[in-house]
Amino acid sequence: MSRSRVPDIVVGRLPIYLRTLHQLEDTGYTFTSSQELGKRIGISSAQIRKDLAHFGEFGKQGTGYEVKYLQEQIAKILNVDQDWSVALVGFGDLGQALSRYSGFARKGFHIDVVFDQDPQKIGKKYHEVTIYDFEELAKIVSSQGIKLAIIAVPGFAAQDVAEKLVEAGVRAILNYAPVKLFVDEGVRVEYIDPIAHLQQMSFYLT
Amino acid sequence: MSRSRVPDIVVGRLPIYLRTLHQLEDTGYTFTSSQELGKRIGISSAQIRKDLAHFGEFGKQGTGYEVKYLQEQIAKILNVDQDWSVALVGFGDLGQALSRYSGFARKGFHIDVVFDQDPQKIGKKYHEVTIYDFEELAKIVSSQGIKLAIIAVPGFAAQDVAEKLVEAGVRAILNYAPVKLFVDEGVRVEYIDPIAHLQQMSFYLT
Repeated sequence: MSRSRVPDIVVGRLPIYLRTLHQLEDTGYTFTSSQELGKRIGISSAQIRKDLAHFGEFGKQGTGYEVKYLQEQIAKILNVDQDWSVALVGFGDLGQALSRYSGFARKGFHIDVVFDQDPQKIGKKYHEVTIYDFEELAKIVSSQGIKLAIIAVPGFAAQDVAEKLVEAGVRAILNYAPVKLFVDEGVRVEYIDPIAHLQQMSFYLT
Repeated sequence: MSRSRVPDIVVGRLPIYLRTLHQLEDTGYTFTSSQELGKRIGISSAQIRKDLAHFGEFGKQGTGYEVKYLQEQIAKILNVDQDWSVALVGFGDLGQALSRYSGFARKGFHIDVVFDQDPQKIGKKYHEVTIYDFEELAKIVSSQGIKLAIIAVPGFAAQDVAEKLVEAGVRAILNYAPVKLFVDEGVRVEYIDPIAHLQQMSFYLT
């Protein structure tokens, strides 16, 4: 099946399946089932079987799924059987926290270039990573063929940054700036907004 | 209308309306319209009017919404016209990044207590915040009446932490651990998982 035909919501569950398989492997499981996966993830086993059927036949009647094999297959489907180079734009409070967080690299997403416009930061090196002038973004991102970027600039600057990234060849943006981004069709944007989640939950607190 | 009757998805949009109103105020707007808000947020003006109608009548035919007034009203609805005390559990790589990030406090969510189980960290003070022994969580969280918590522990430990938090009176959890949490009905959980978002997007990169 063509990738573009798979519903977004199904693709969105694949990372959850993948991490659950890692957790099963870490706790000594060799085989698992759609029931076991469903129980841990909090969705139905039928849903899991239906989701996976978009991509092929991975289990066997009776024995279920081989954990390691299904893990590898889903990693391949998600294109995370390879490492990715990521550009981070914005090296303020949030950008610095993100660049220090090792979780991205552990999962194969390497923040290889960082951009900021503060002359105090440009050209300096913080833990392995050099901060480049935002003006050089187009040149560096396109010459390095970077497809993934993280935006951690203030809200008012984010749309401009997104447009420059897309012009330079970026096709997927993880946006920490608290604004909606408007980009070309075919460019993916995902949002991280912990404040919005906290505010949403405080609605229910009395 | 009773709070529990408002659809979750509507409540989830209120923080987006609020931050957009702040951005409008910052750029000098005194009045706005559902059209203007919709354009900035990327949803229809009809949706905005319908969402707000759950809570009352905030605009006037002809003049639209007064930015400052609507902001205050939505803040009140979301219970963010007051400050909240937040417990952070887990002071590893991620927890440290979160505690250093000033964005939470700027929006009224104050990480007042931090828990970890590493004897090397317990009792130490990092930038204003003291790290407490995880064993003291129940006592401290309940005596301080803390209702909101952020979980930043490894996946395998998160469910146990969530249960202890809920026992201590927490009613809303922002979970950075990459696992589904199973909690009592009436307790809210929201998830932050940037890795899942990156993996979801890399699916589309070829």
